[in-house]
Amino acid sequence: MNKPVAIVLAGGVGKRFWPIETDKSLLPFLGRPLIEHTIQSLNHEKIERILVVANEANKKDIGRIKPRSGRITIVVQEKPMGMADALRTAKKEIGGKAILVINGADRVDQSLYHDVLTKSEMGSERVIIPGREHGQHFQGGYLRVRNERVLEIVEKPEAGSEPSTLVNLVVHYFRNADDLLTEIEKVKSETDDVYEHAVSRLLENGGAGLVRYEGPFGFVKYPWDILEMARLFLSSLKEKRVSKKAVIHPKATIEGPVVIGDNVSVLEQAVIKGPAYIGNSSSIGTNCLVLESIIGENTVVGFSSEITRSYIGDGCWLHQNYIGDTILEGENYFGAGAVTANFRFDAGAIASKVASENVNTGRKKLGAIVGRGARVGVNASLMPGIKIGGKALVGPGVTVYRDVPREAKLFERQERPQP
Amino acid sequence: MNKPVAIVLAGGVGKRFWPIETDKSLLPFLGRPLIEHTIQSLNHEKIERILVVANEANKKDIGRIKPRSGRITIVVQEKPMGMADALRTAKKEIGGKAILVINGADRVDQSLYHDVLTKSEMGSERVIIPGREHGQHFQGGYLRVRNERVLEIVEKPEAGSEPSTLVNLVVHYFRNADDLLTEIEKVKSETDDVYEHAVSRLLENGGAGLVRYEGPFGFVKYPWDILEMARLFLSSLKEKRVSKKAVIHPKATIEGPVVIGDNVSVLEQAVIKGPAYIGNSSSIGTNCLVLESIIGENTVVGFSSEITRSYIGDGCWLHQNYIGDTILEGENYFGAGAVTANFRFDAGAIASKVASENVNTGRKKLGAIVGRGARVGVNASLMPGIKIGGKALVGPGVTVYRDVPREAKLFERQERPQP
Amino acid sequence: MNKPVAIVLAGGVGKRFWPIETDKSLLPFLGRPLIEHTIQSLNHEKIERILVVANEANKKDIGRIKPRSGRITIVVQEKPMGMADALRTAKKEIGGKAILVINGADRVDQSLYHDVLTKSEMGSERVIIPGREHGQHFQGGYLRVRNERVLEIVEKPEAGSEPSTLVNLVVHYFRNADDLLTEIEKVKSETDDVYEHAVSRLLENGGAGLVRYEGPFGFVKYPWDILEMARLFLSSLKEKRVSKKAVIHPKATIEGPVVIGDNVSVLEQAVIKGPAYIGNSSSIGTNCLVLESIIGENTVVGFSSEITRSYIGDGCWLHQNYIGDTILEGENYFGAGAVTANFRFDAGAIASKVASENVNTGRKKLGAIVGRGARVGVNASLMPGIKIGGKALVGPGVTVYRDVPREAKLFERQERPQP
Repeated sequence: MNKPVAIVLAGGVGKRFWPIETDKSLLPFLGRPLIEHTIQSLNHEKIERILVVANEANKKDIGRIKPRSGRITIVVQEKPMGMADALRTAKKEIGGKAILVINGADRVDQSLYHDVLTKSEMGSERVIIPGREHGQHFQGGYLRVRNERVLEIVEKPEAGSEPSTLVNLVVHYFRNADDLLTEIEKVKSETDDVYEHAVSRLLENGGAGLVRYEGPFGFVKYPWDILEMARLFLSSLKEKRVSKKAVIHPKATIEGPVVIGDNVSVLEQAVIKGPAYIGNSSSIGTNCLVLESIIGENTVVGFSSEITRSYIGDGCWLHQNYIGDTILEGENYFGAGAVTANFRFDAGAIASKVASENVNTGRKKLGAIVGRGARVGVNASLMPGIKIGGKALVGPGVTVYRDVPREAKLFERQERPQP
Repeated sequence: MNKPVAIVLAGGVGKRFWPIETDKSLLPFLGRPLIEHTIQSLNHEKIERILVVANEANKKDIGRIKPRSGRITIVVQEKPMGMADALRTAKKEIGGKAILVINGADRVDQSLYHDVLTKSEMGSERVIIPGREHGQHFQGGYLRVRNERVLEIVEKPEAGSEPSTLVNLVVHYFRNADDLLTEIEKVKSETDDVYEHAVSRLLENGGAGLVRYEGPFGFVKYPWDILEMARLFLSSLKEKRVSKKAVIHPKATIEGPVVIGDNVSVLEQAVIKGPAYIGNSSSIGTNCLVLESIIGENTVVGFSSEITRSYIGDGCWLHQNYIGDTILEGENYFGAGAVTANFRFDAGAIASKVASENVNTGRKKLGAIVGRGARVGVNASLMPGIKIGGKALVGPGVTVYRDVPREAKLFERQERPQP
Repeated sequence: MNKPVAIVLAGGVGKRFWPIETDKSLLPFLGRPLIEHTIQSLNHEKIERILVVANEANKKDIGRIKPRSGRITIVVQEKPMGMADALRTAKKEIGGKAILVINGADRVDQSLYHDVLTKSEMGSERVIIPGREHGQHFQGGYLRVRNERVLEIVEKPEAGSEPSTLVNLVVHYFRNADDLLTEIEKVKSETDDVYEHAVSRLLENGGAGLVRYEGPFGFVKYPWDILEMARLFLSSLKEKRVSKKAVIHPKATIEGPVVIGDNVSVLEQAVIKGPAYIGNSSSIGTNCLVLESIIGENTVVGFSSEITRSYIGDGCWLHQNYIGDTILEGENYFGAGAVTANFRFDAGAIASKVASENVNTGRKKLGAIVGRGARVGVNASLMPGIKIGGKALVGPGVTVYRDVPREAKLFERQERPQP
């Protein structure tokens, strides 16, 4: 048996991820970078080794990650030119070998890796591709399927003309990387779907084995996807786990699956309702409420703040705030009385501007998305779906109706766009 | 003995009741419409039956009310043309009979009905009228009295020229309705005091028996009267009564006469101090304080809100608010940090505009009066005595200095009128 | 032995103390005027008597103060013309006697009085002057010292050219007041450092005995010095002391050295963390947090307020506020949601205008300084270091960027000065 090389793709750059500047693969969830969760989900007994295609910016941090056994190898993709380019970059390492291609910033249950690898061990398939039923229309690849065989990957079909209800999951097995690399060289395309075209060409002759998957699936394309990713991770928590080095006041309430790190303090009457995660050295102040949220490290949730369904990074300072369905990347300061509105008056789905285009986030509840180091003054109000660039300042008492650029200082009341 | 027909008047329309759109008789207190309290206060053994004069809009809801025994009969007043017109409408049902005329939206202790009916049973009086000492000047009818007999009803005398200190309470007994109906036909008046003129004419010959009453008396003429009415109902609560279907967190505090309905949840550290009433399926969130207030059904009082001396209707959503001396009709949403100011800087009595006239509410503490379905954005501030029309929107961070019309959208800071 | 007369200077007027209008000597700390602490620190066995140099405005209140034994004598300085003038005013009372000159509004440990007096009892020194090592540059007098003798008082030397690291403390002993008074007459100066010049002249012949002091030293020159003075007093509290007449709810938390006066009520879930002082008849409401602060008498700290490192005077009303590193002189009302910002976005030291000059307060955390009777509306925001004059009104929702004059009414958003 030819155990495959697991190729974890992490060389891309999030073009639609502003104001979040952290590399997607390195975004921490439950205290570890996203890609670390992926790497540690791989059963080393079923793969030859792990190869990460990184970029200049993230290679160092990725290099520190420990897999379950052995070490990871890193190759650096010089420019973020897509999956096909990533595989070309790894050519020397994978030539002639079986490979398992994985998106480093996707989140699936490790049973999926197991199922794909187990099917590959039977030896009959040149290619294996998993698919997942997706309830509503999905902005990504769909599978054309006949008789449980995958015949083609169709990128971003229009709603209503999807070739099946199965969405393509990038946990792709190829018995011989050379087959794929050869097809890649044949595709003439300037767009970033060279990989999918090459796979589809490869499938013209006999298709691929299909693995149906029904477990959780998370991805981060837009910044608000972080909230759904956080929800996925939180839903994996099954029991309460409080560090012995944490100090929990006897008048605090901790309910459900809550993980509390070292040197955390939880003060009088604080209420934490799981699933929730509190990173090392953070504190949850008197009368605070934390609900279904991830709190990073060294973050202070001050007196009488409420954090609901949110992702709070490291080193934040909050104080008498309402933070709902909101993302704070890290090192964010909110003055007393600053709040996020997370719900439209008309209860409609919330839109957000991405590269000057209004994108429907599909969420009825969405607060703000705040880049690293941005600060928000006392009694300021952030409207639903607002994004605030890194190191920006929002002045006291300001109501923010539009995105705030990086390092901008917004001290005047922002004119409200006409309805 | 001729037991009287109790005629409960509910055909009127509240001209000075904006922004409250609910029919006065149907306003719920302690979970039941105001008129239901009145109807159920009537001892069926002392009356022949109950006849309600309703209008097109409220007849259906009133029809559902169950008296202590039997059923109520409804006649519909086509236009809201006052008490005399209401009695004319009921002519067929009451001709030749003894009647007890009652205002459906007034609130008195049931001892008053008892005292009037008991006096009527002695058989010597053609008319019986109760009076109540009123501390300060009252904008309504006063009784002219000599030797414990009522000689005349004087409508709205000037302060200082009241004919006595006794205020007219509409729990009027007539041994024969025809006497009254005859006098009504003789009155030539275009104003809405035909009834009082007719009664006064009837009294010219021997006057009426006086019943002195010292118990509580509530009425709803202006919308802020709802607060005093709520206070009356709350003061009638004598003990704690928590539904077995309610879930009270062990860290919550419930003190004094508090009634808590089915499926209510009261969360960690919530404090409810009686007298207070929490309707079915509502929830009082973590760290909330509810003090001397009525909360309707299906209302969510969210994290760290304070509700003091207020009337909150059904289906409201609150969150980190201060709601003091305030009326929310129902289905009102307040964003985090929205507050009602309920006290003037100069500690003076608070005025409110009614039909473009400034009316002194007589209250030193009065928050806002918010019509059904109106929503208030995060960090908005409502000034004392402000009224907000149904379905209006108050934007985030806005300070509201003037009444907001129905369905209006107020997104700019409102210019403050010069002092 | 000639026991000295202790001369406590309290005739001055705080020119840089706006918006605080209370006489410095009479500012209450831990329930007693500042000067009362000074007077009661004096050991009556080592002094002949206490003479206070007061002014017309404060003489009455000072007259009520009881020393440890006997009574105090008061002489009134007609105009606040400095220390030399104060001593001239007291000439008749002190001629030919030993004196101990003390600043009534300074705060030192009583060991300092003891050390100076003990040294004086040895009889060898004509003058004794204490000095204290000061960590950073101090805007006051420094001592020129050689061989443990004080040779001169140097008023306000430039940073870097201080004659020593020892700061002059005004606990000055003179064996014969006439020596000093004679020198005072010789000084020709229009400025207010006549006293220091006179002392320095006196020292030309042999210098003064030096007493080194390492204990606490507090003074009130600028209004924000009140915060440091409060810290000093609080740090002197060593144990919890709750009046038997106070009512503490069993769900409240009181930790550390906290003094709670008569008739105080502390409600559900209130948290008081020492050192802290709560004056008579005040109340700490449900869910409040009081941390390292002094609260005066008859003050209501309402629902869910946080008071951190602040000085709150008598008769204040707070409610859902954040009050951090802030001074409220007394009778101040804050509406719900009004907050003090106490930290600059850039984490820099906070400046404050004093007599149209920007003074660096040296503090990184400083909230507002609010004069007696000023009121602040709901959801208003006070920027760091802002001063608000007595009886001024700050309207609801206003962000205050500049000082507000006495009795001013600020209802518009204040334009932000360009950065």
